Amino acid sequence: MKQLRLTLLGFGTVGQWLAETLHRQQAWLQQEFGLVVSIIAVATAHHGLISRGDGLDIPTLLDLVATRQPLTAHPEVTHWTNVLEGLQATGGDVLVEATGATLRNGEPGVSYIRAALSLGMYVITSSKGPMALAGRDLLSLARAQGVQLRMESTVMSGTPVLGTIREGMAGTRIRAIRGLLNGTVNYILSAMAMGQDYAEALTQAQALGYAEADPTDDVEGDDAVAKTLILAAVVFGRTLVPSQVVRRGITTLTREQVQQADALSKRIKHVASLRLLSLDGTEVSRATADNGTVPTRLEVHVEPIALPLSDPLARIDGLLNAIVIQTDTPAEVTVIGPGAGRFQAGQGVLADLIALAKSP
Amino acid sequence: MKQLRLTLLGFGTVGQWLAETLHRQQAWLQQEFGLVVSIIAVATAHHGLISRGDGLDIPTLLDLVATRQPLTAHPEVTHWTNVLEGLQATGGDVLVEATGATLRNGEPGVSYIRAALSLGMYVITSSKGPMALAGRDLLSLARAQGVQLRMESTVMSGTPVLGTIREGMAGTRIRAIRGLLNGTVNYILSAMAMGQDYAEALTQAQALGYAEADPTDDVEGDDAVAKTLILAAVVFGRTLVPSQVVRRGITTLTREQVQQADALSKRIKHVASLRLLSLDGTEVSRATADNGTVPTRLEVHVEPIALPLSDPLARIDGLLNAIVIQTDTPAEVTVIGPGAGRFQAGQGVLADLIALAKSP
Repeated sequence: MKQLRLTLLGFGTVGQWLAETLHRQQAWLQQEFGLVVSIIAVATAHHGLISRGDGLDIPTLLDLVATRQPLTAHPEVTHWTNVLEGLQATGGDVLVEATGATLRNGEPGVSYIRAALSLGMYVITSSKGPMALAGRDLLSLARAQGVQLRMESTVMSGTPVLGTIREGMAGTRIRAIRGLLNGTVNYILSAMAMGQDYAEALTQAQALGYAEADPTDDVEGDDAVAKTLILAAVVFGRTLVPSQVVRRGITTLTREQVQQADALSKRIKHVASLRLLSLDGTEVSRATADNGTVPTRLEVHVEPIALPLSDPLARIDGLLNAIVIQTDTPAEVTVIGPGAGRFQAGQGVLADLIALAKSP
Repeated sequence: MKQLRLTLLGFGTVGQWLAETLHRQQAWLQQEFGLVVSIIAVATAHHGLISRGDGLDIPTLLDLVATRQPLTAHPEVTHWTNVLEGLQATGGDVLVEATGATLRNGEPGVSYIRAALSLGMYVITSSKGPMALAGRDLLSLARAQGVQLRMESTVMSGTPVLGTIREGMAGTRIRAIRGLLNGTVNYILSAMAMGQDYAEALTQAQALGYAEADPTDDVEGDDAVAKTLILAAVVFGRTLVPSQVVRRGITTLTREQVQQADALSKRIKHVASLRLLSLDGTEVSRATADNGTVPTRLEVHVEPIALPLSDPLARIDGLLNAIVIQTDTPAEVTVIGPGAGRFQAGQGVLADLIALAKSP
């Protein structure tokens, strides 16, 4: 039963949910999972980083946020306006990076994660950008430092996908992954399958809070591309850049195309797919690839596909996400669950934290 | 990178697959997962236990089985006719219990697992009987001894379910689980949905090797009941006996009942369900239950149910298994995959072994 000293960068939805849960469920988390956490530092983009060696008081932090006061009003804290300097001075056992770093360059997450790994800290990130753009490098750094880097909530949020692949299916040879990785897009396509056209479906999704005012990242596939890059790095150990992903969005899909698919007993879905291929285009297993004797490439697509109803992804509707993992044995495993939601990302971080508490 | 000294009880499909995979994939498993294993003892029901402190030679073991020679023909081994005595004398770091212990009393698995835990060994079991009938006691013993007891392949075989719930979803409060946990039964029900009657569907399943000559354990629900008892112990920490499960098999289902359901846009499925209820019959979360302030009971059913097509279990057909995990947050997670198959159970054991190799 070791106590984990945690530094939390980003105190938005994910950070606040995590802090509140660690506080409210403290006894249960300790008894059930041996998880004992002290939050020794918190940072926000606006207020920099505050730290206190013997632990910050979580109710005070949540009160300050609720009453729109700066976190620096917490008693007896040290304050750094530069978050990176604060992180390096404070350290701790675990960095939770929940800044929501951008998909453009992965910053500030990449710098924070790199700094923490270099300090020998475990790292959990809920930001897609750093893992999508620098995933393999960061994982290599973690390995070199002998620490863990976990990112469950970056793909399908709190629905356990990365852990299921890396741990639950450890030892299988993954040869392909297909998934519906964006709930907004899946909601729009489901509405179109019910007869709406794209513009109507988007407006409805926006009205319900499922789509942003600027929906580009979702409907053009940027978000799904980021998740495929994470899967490429974490599952296949490959570094890809966004331009290597064959990508088509859903903005030009018409109601007629959706209806034509329906007439053929098919459903149009926005499918993210990763397949390990030998250079002559045949599928190979990762084990074969890892032998080093067979040169392989990872083919990654994010595009609308008309799926037959027998496909496990064809009937996944609404905001749900799903992923189908194909392995060397004939087995195919499907995981279905929410890919977003107020508590989901925090839950993924919590599961990662519990995994760290159990690790050597 | 520590070497695990492994004792393997049972050298049938699971044991042989595991040994062969550990040998054939040795370099990959070491590089990828840090898994280094030496099999120091193997036992079969017929030949007792053989051991060799510096490790048995896997190709020799597999050759002996393939040519129907006794394992005692392996060079330089010590031989015990009594497996339990051999286990206690040999020890090792990990026991893999793959004897296929019966559902009647869980033996010989329960005795072997208890002995190994008492020796401070980690234990992985692929036998349903011991975990169904003595799961909570064995888990308590493991906890008291400070060692892990893992059993991924006992529910849905190599499809990761127990790990997904216990680790991937760690920190959520599970309030209910529903599943299709027997592929034979699901195959028969799928065939009936296509127009066959029960007897025809059973005969076809037997002809294809999907059902035993005596199909009782499957079609009367014993196998699914065993899996619900394992879930009760592992996920909910409850000890139930088989008579506490409300159970109905599928043998009296008629084609007419299946067709009537179809006319109502429903599918009859054999659903295993576990729900945590307060004493007044309302659902509660495990967290509430663990507070100790609310007395709860676990209600467990295994029975045919007509599910609406919107239910994620309604369209799971053929030999596939599936499980739906409901948590305190609105999230519902579904895992679909094979629940049996030549390599599947061994894969579950391998994933457990990799997890142990990473543990403290």
